Amino acid sequence: MNKLLIVGTLAYDALRTPYGERPRILGGSGLHAAVAATLDGPVNLLSIVGGDFEKKYLDFLTKRGADTRGVKIIPDGKTFAWSGFYENDLNAHSLQTDLNVLTQFDPVLPPEYLASEYVFCGNIDPELQGKVFAQLPERKFGALDTMNFWISGKKTILLEVIAQADLLFINDAELRQLTGEPNLLKAARALLKGRLKYVALKKGENGALLISADKIAAVPSFPLSEVTDPTGAGDSFAGGFMSYIARHGCRAGLSLPAKACRTHRRPATDWTALRQALVYGTLTASFNVQGFGCERLAEVTKADLAKRLELFREIAGVCAE
Amino acid sequence: MNKLLIVGTLAYDALRTPYGERPRILGGSGLHAAVAATLDGPVNLLSIVGGDFEKKYLDFLTKRGADTRGVKIIPDGKTFAWSGFYENDLNAHSLQTDLNVLTQFDPVLPPEYLASEYVFCGNIDPELQGKVFAQLPERKFGALDTMNFWISGKKTILLEVIAQADLLFINDAELRQLTGEPNLLKAARALLKGRLKYVALKKGENGALLISADKIAAVPSFPLSEVTDPTGAGDSFAGGFMSYIARHGCRAGLSLPAKACRTHRRPATDWTALRQALVYGTLTASFNVQGFGCERLAEVTKADLAKRLELFREIAGVCAE
Repeated sequence: MNKLLIVGTLAYDALRTPYGERPRILGGSGLHAAVAATLDGPVNLLSIVGGDFEKKYLDFLTKRGADTRGVKIIPDGKTFAWSGFYENDLNAHSLQTDLNVLTQFDPVLPPEYLASEYVFCGNIDPELQGKVFAQLPERKFGALDTMNFWISGKKTILLEVIAQADLLFINDAELRQLTGEPNLLKAARALLKGRLKYVALKKGENGALLISADKIAAVPSFPLSEVTDPTGAGDSFAGGFMSYIARHGCRAGLSLPAKACRTHRRPATDWTALRQALVYGTLTASFNVQGFGCERLAEVTKADLAKRLELFREIAGVCAE
Repeated sequence: MNKLLIVGTLAYDALRTPYGERPRILGGSGLHAAVAATLDGPVNLLSIVGGDFEKKYLDFLTKRGADTRGVKIIPDGKTFAWSGFYENDLNAHSLQTDLNVLTQFDPVLPPEYLASEYVFCGNIDPELQGKVFAQLPERKFGALDTMNFWISGKKTILLEVIAQADLLFINDAELRQLTGEPNLLKAARALLKGRLKYVALKKGENGALLISADKIAAVPSFPLSEVTDPTGAGDSFAGGFMSYIARHGCRAGLSLPAKACRTHRRPATDWTALRQALVYGTLTASFNVQGFGCERLAEVTKADLAKRLELFREIAGVCAE
């Protein structure tokens, strides 16, 4: 088992959606990605919190299989906080963002994390994402997420860090903003420079695409009759995706289970693992949005995930690879 | 071979997109649906045009296998005309709509059309759609399309006609407008009254869903690096979908090819035919948007379609059913 390193925020969120509200709930990109990834294996978590971060939350993460030795506590600081609401359209409307201890985040990996072969850098300052990659020169597969704020404010350094990742998680609007190219396929492929080989395009309720220089994989989202809270959907998608990759391997040198696809009668390849990771990410995110914060995802079992996977195969008509 | 009846407009469109412009090009819902459906079999076309409608266009349709005895010509009238443009976002911006002879459209079926078992009513006044269904009481499968104009102006009669169809083609915004329900699954299922058993949700570049009371099928769109002209995408989707249904059958009493799905080892069912129709509609529409009007789709061969189907199976990971 190769441990996955997750770098991202731990936060207190204040949320209101058409289904209710939570004035103070556990959130953050690191939280959602870690809760998703630990559904299926241990992770190393790198983050920062204030003295107000309750111990029960660290215990919750530890119990799920997250190593929290990399979560720095600033006793006299306050934890990162975000508040916002969603209307019926389920688009996020930010009310307030208090960076708090996040301004002091210096992502130095504890010695125990230096063997991490798989890395997911959630949406933080690209300079910090670059610092993480620099500490893991032997990493097998690194991925990062970003947002409009960094695209407009730190585009040059962001593009440098993207070229050091193997995979970029991004949504439609961000991809167009970053490249200036309205066509998503062209835009994604324009980014494939340096080490970057894959773009995972997150389209929310409209599914996801994985784009390489010569291949495309597309999956619809898992249709839900109720979306309780979309917060963290992208982070849980990335967490599920990366946890699948950490378990099943990717890139030359890592052997995959020699299981052939029943329809195509071909042995599994790196691309097959990436396509399956896209499905796992999609399903993980589908549970995440069914509850406030990580309330629903935290209760999900591997059996729940397997059941939803069977249903998804019927809905999307995909092969059981 | 069961002939498919297509009811819809024939028009002169004036278009501008980021890829160029066409000041006077053949268009209309009936045109796009008929060009799509005739890729694979003959159709009966019911429509109306003015004396300005060039004979070469009727010849073009006849040559493709469309019976045009139901296309009424008003010698002293002008053909329906629409002009609009698309920006980079590929959303349509209407400039002008001249109904012209469309205001005189009385959809009376010629005797030769009365044996049509499959019917697609393109986006026209729901009262006229109801008149078509009334002339085909023995139809096996009827589908209709609509738009925001009829939803806001003739909602009551539209809902009555929808309940007389087997399947409704509709997009996200129209479905929400029609039902007042933001969740698309709930909205689609709220419409399943009377005869209506299926909603085909058109999401453009975000794929398509087929929703019944207890099942869902979801497919992504075919990823394209250039979309030349989105006009008629929905109509060609419906034309491709309905032509597949007319060939492969649907509803009790019609036997499907007894071919088992290779992955699921089950015999094909009505639902399987509908799911495949969703894929065929998706691919047909993908060709339509690669040229102005029907320029590209008119050149497509069955071999082109089969090739794209193979590629789509790789991209979407769907079973070869």
